[in-house]
Order: sequence, then C-alpha cells, then structure tokens
Amino acid sequence: MRYVRDNIASACGYVPGFQPGIDAVKLNTNENPYPPSEKVLDAIRSITPDQLRRYPQPMGDDFRKAAAEVLDLKPENIICTNGGDDLLTICLRAFCDNHSSVTWPGPTYSLYPVLAKLQNCTYEEIPFEKDNARFGDKLIETDASLVIICNPNAPTGSFIEPEKIEEIANKLQGKSAVVVDEAYADFAYDNCLKLIEKCENIIILRSMSKGYSLAGIRFGFGIAQKQMIEQLMKVKDSYNVDAVAIKAAAAAITDREYFISNVEKILEQREKITAELGKLGFTVNKSNTNFVLAQNQNAREIYEKLTEKNIYVRYFDIDGLKDKLRITIGTEEQNKVLIDGIADITGKKD
Amino acid sequence: MRYVRDNIASACGYVPGFQPGIDAVKLNTNENPYPPSEKVLDAIRSITPDQLRRYPQPMGDDFRKAAAEVLDLKPENIICTNGGDDLLTICLRAFCDNHSSVTWPGPTYSLYPVLAKLQNCTYEEIPFEKDNARFGDKLIETDASLVIICNPNAPTGSFIEPEKIEEIANKLQGKSAVVVDEAYADFAYDNCLKLIEKCENIIILRSMSKGYSLAGIRFGFGIAQKQMIEQLMKVKDSYNVDAVAIKAAAAAITDREYFISNVEKILEQREKITAELGKLGFTVNKSNTNFVLAQNQNAREIYEKLTEKNIYVRYFDIDGLKDKLRITIGTEEQNKVLIDGIADITGKKD
Repeated sequence: MRYVRDNIASACGYVPGFQPGIDAVKLNTNENPYPPSEKVLDAIRSITPDQLRRYPQPMGDDFRKAAAEVLDLKPENIICTNGGDDLLTICLRAFCDNHSSVTWPGPTYSLYPVLAKLQNCTYEEIPFEKDNARFGDKLIETDASLVIICNPNAPTGSFIEPEKIEEIANKLQGKSAVVVDEAYADFAYDNCLKLIEKCENIIILRSMSKGYSLAGIRFGFGIAQKQMIEQLMKVKDSYNVDAVAIKAAAAAITDREYFISNVEKILEQREKITAELGKLGFTVNKSNTNFVLAQNQNAREIYEKLTEKNIYVRYFDIDGLKDKLRITIGTEEQNKVLIDGIADITGKKD
Repeated sequence: MRYVRDNIASACGYVPGFQPGIDAVKLNTNENPYPPSEKVLDAIRSITPDQLRRYPQPMGDDFRKAAAEVLDLKPENIICTNGGDDLLTICLRAFCDNHSSVTWPGPTYSLYPVLAKLQNCTYEEIPFEKDNARFGDKLIETDASLVIICNPNAPTGSFIEPEKIEEIANKLQGKSAVVVDEAYADFAYDNCLKLIEKCENIIILRSMSKGYSLAGIRFGFGIAQKQMIEQLMKVKDSYNVDAVAIKAAAAAITDREYFISNVEKILEQREKITAELGKLGFTVNKSNTNFVLAQNQNAREIYEKLTEKNIYVRYFDIDGLKDKLRITIGTEEQNKVLIDGIADITGKKD
C-alpha cells in the first residue's frame, strides 16, 4: 500500500484471542468468568440522555476520585485510559521513537512488540532469568527510554517482588521510564502501588477488565507521580474514556465487597485446577493471575482436541511456549468441563 | 520533565471547550441539543453481564454492518473509532512522521496541530482562499503525505463541493492520503461519500457525536476503500470501541426516522438564528453545520458578557477569528435565551 509509512505497511497488527460463541467454555482470553457487580449494571442503566448527548469528562474525574479513595492516592496520580492497552500506546508515544527504544523481560504480553513497531522504535526482549534473584541484572544495563515489566507476568503467571522492581527503577532513574503492567495484580499477593511515592519514573498500569469483569467496557488506568501523569495527559485523546464507561468503572471500583468475593472465588478455583492439572501430567507453576500456564509435551494436540470439544484455551506457537497451554480460571462448572475434557483426551479419565 | 520525548515535553495538549453546569445555556462545543433516540437508551439498558465481562468485537462488527446498510457500503469499507478524534490520531500515525508532514486549509479544527506535534511531524496550514473556486490551488502542490480537509469546516461552517475535493484527491493520487473530516456532514446539503468508490486515497471521517446526539459515548468511524481500511486497522488499539458504545451507535444509525427529524429541527433553528443575529448587527455566513460563525466587532466583549449570564458560546483568540463567535444551534428555547441575551448586551432589546 502506498501512502502509509513503511513501518505500518510492514506491520501485522495484533491478533486478539479467538471469540467463540456464547455456548463455548471460553478460557482463552483471561476474562473474569463471573458477572460484574450489580451496581455496575445499575450505573449503566441510569445513564441519562443528557449524559449521552454531552461530551464526557475529559479526564474521567468521577473515576479518578473513586479510584483515589479506594487506593489511598490523589486523583492527580491517576490517568484514565480506554483499556490498559491505551495506556501502553500512550507510553510508547510519550517515551519512544526511532532514536529511543523500549525493552521488556520476556516471554510476555505479545502486544508490546506490535506497539513498538507502530511507533517505529527498536525493541529488545530480555529473556527472564531462571533464577528470580538475578532478575533485572541485564535490564538495568539498558539504554532504552522505556522499560515495561509485566507483573504478574502474562503468559507465565510469575511474580517479581516490589522490592526488586524498586531497585531496578532506582538504577534507571533519570534514564528510563518504567511501566509496571499490573493488569493481573488483582489476583497477586502483592503489588507495586507503594513505589509510586518513592520512584518518579514508575507508571503502574491497572485494568478493569480482569478483576472487575469489565473487559467489554474498555477501562484501564495509570498511576504515577503528578508530574508524570501531566505528561501522559498530553498524549491521550481529548476524550479517551466515555461517559458510560466512567460511570461503570467508578461503580465497580467502589463496590469492594463484591470485588473481594469475586477474586476469592477465582483464587480458590486456581488452587483447585493447579492440583487437578498436576494429577493429569501437567507441570503448573504457582500463578499470581487469573490463569495458569500448564506445561505438557502434548500441549498442541491437547489444545486442538479441546477446541473440537468447544473448550477454548490459548496456545502460543512461540519458542519457550510450544509445550504449554495458558488456561484462564473459569467458574467451578467450566473448570470441571475442562478437566474432564483433558482427562478424556489424555486417556486419564477415571 | 526528563524521560518523555522532546516533542511531548514541549507540547501543550488540546484544551477542550469549557463544560459548565447542567443549568447553563451551553452553545460552546457543538453538541446536539436534543436527546439521542429512545432506541439508543433501550440498547444501552439491555446490555447483559456477559457482554460487559467479555472483550468486545475487535472491529465493532455490529456497527459496521448497520452503518454499511444505511450508507450503502460494505462493512469492509468501515473502521470504527473511539470518537472521530481517534481516527485522526490513527491517520497521523499511519501516514506521518518526522520525514512525512501533514497539511490542511485553515483556520480549522484546532486539534490538528496538536496531533501533528504529538506525532513529531511538521505541518502547514494553508489559508482558505476567499474565492472558493480557487480552493485547492495551493493544496495540490503539497509534499505532505497527509492532507486533512474539514468539510463542512469548523469553525467557519463553510462547505467545499465534493467535485472540487475529487479533483484535489486525484491530483494527489500516489502521493498523499486525503482525510475529509465530515464530523458535521449530517447538517450539510451534500457530502463526499460518493468519492470512496473513485478515489483510493480518500478517507472520510464521520462522527456520532453531533448528528446522533452521542458525544458522551465516543463513537466515530472512517470510510475508505478496503485496502486503505486494512492499513488503518493495524494502527488502531486492539479493542478501541467498547461493547456498550457499539450497541448504542448501531441503534442510533439504524433509527433513520428519528435522525432525520432531529437534523430538520436543527436546520430550522439554524435558519432562524442566522436571521436574528443579522438583525442584531452580526454578519453570519451560510452554515452547513450545527453552529454558526457570527462576526461582530465587539465579539469578545459580547462573549464575556454572555458568560456572565450563564450562556456559553465559543470564542477563539486566534488571528482571523478575534471578531467572531462560534455559536452552536440549541433548542428553540435556548436560542431565544441567547438572542435575548445578545440584544440586552448590545442595547438592541425591543
């Protein structure tokens, strides 16, 4: 195609996970299996014609206030984004260009290289160390202006301690911004929120898609020191989050009781499914997310046969992941169908 | 601020029009004064927990199908965007960089230079010719990889014939993409839709904010030949429009009867207010939009005094616009309050 820049012409775009029909057991895109809080539905249904007719709050202030209260921050520490992906785009555009690169430990979220390509900047994926204690040794030597650490990491489910991330951010101070992609932090035992006060170069990414069951409304947010947020605000679209989404997300983050019980149910199922998969010959590392990465030498075959059974999990045809399945934690019922399906395929049915 | 690119550090960001309280007479940001179709509210209220919990359609296919039917196109000719502004960002990113510039006839929508700055590309504003017949003479000499023509233009309300735009696009073929920003086309007597089939380099921008009273949900779309749409799809966020917005926008564009009667009411009021402002000493050119640009040597003073009366119109402190007010067409009632207010300020009260 003429007209477009060379980096766009040669780009492939991101390939979202397959979206099967509503009757499928869908454990392939890390959606929450439980519905959002009833208060979210009430908020959406109470939208007025005037709220639809008028432009929304440019900075999504109602959500910023609600989130600041819940997270013990100030609204000025928060930027609302059209999904967490919007924050990633904003950061790539704010920090990177054909002279300023981006780096991340991998394997990780496959959107990062897609965004780097769109921004026409070089990128480097630094393989995760097998020894967690050595994590960051290579990362801190980077010349990149942006470092992205997905933590907990997708698709591995692993978790790096906040103290380690603080150490890395401090060594990169004055040189690189550090995005900690905490899209899955709602399912982890700790997170990096406490680092915001200490580290001027850290930006935390949060998502309402997973922990709050709101993948459909596209709402994420960034957390950073005020000066950093002010720069990111310049890059976002003038009205990047809409009036309905602001109401829905604010209602969701405010209903703590529902959120906590929803997460607890998933953690309980995560423990159960980890054990069950172990019995079926999979190696499953401890997960800090709403999915598990399950290793089995027949991963690809099992994936294909599950698809035939209308059970969808994610398979990545990438070095280091070819013998693994990424399985979203579903409801108790869905998980049972999955385990029975795998038992059937592997011939380990009771 | 360290960390961010120089072009971001020195950028100012876009300043949205002021959003006063609900009791104000708000004629400053070109919102539709009438509510959206009841079918939009029904669509929003019928959202299910499953639709919120799951990722939305990556390309907003339900809207693409609905819009294609209404506009007599194919879905493959349409890209859904998070407001028309999102399409502008996508185009700047697809076509421009520090070697490829953008140009437009001006004065026009003040977001264009903001987006050029974010993309770190140079831009040139070519002054509108006083003689419409000479429009484009300078534009076709451009080396820019992207030309944006706001048509009908904001904030002037003027309209360039599609035949003229076709001529320009043909002369730029193989060199520049041409975005025709038709955010206000719903209020014009013609538009460039018929050019899509003929011109491979034209991209039409449409918005649901104005004609469909949906500024709050952020929904716009681009129309172009299939090959062009495929390139733009690579640049958009993976899920740039949300599940609620897709439903609302599809319901709005399908309800033709409501849309037509809504637009007719605004055109009727536009004619009336043009005449009334004339009587009050303003020069008002024919408008093809849902606003008028009204010239008066005391524009700034009138603007300030209207604000004191809780009546908001838009004043641009920019060369060529300092003696003008951009006034959104309101309801019959709002327009009466405006006219009475101006009559009071200018001492021309009956």
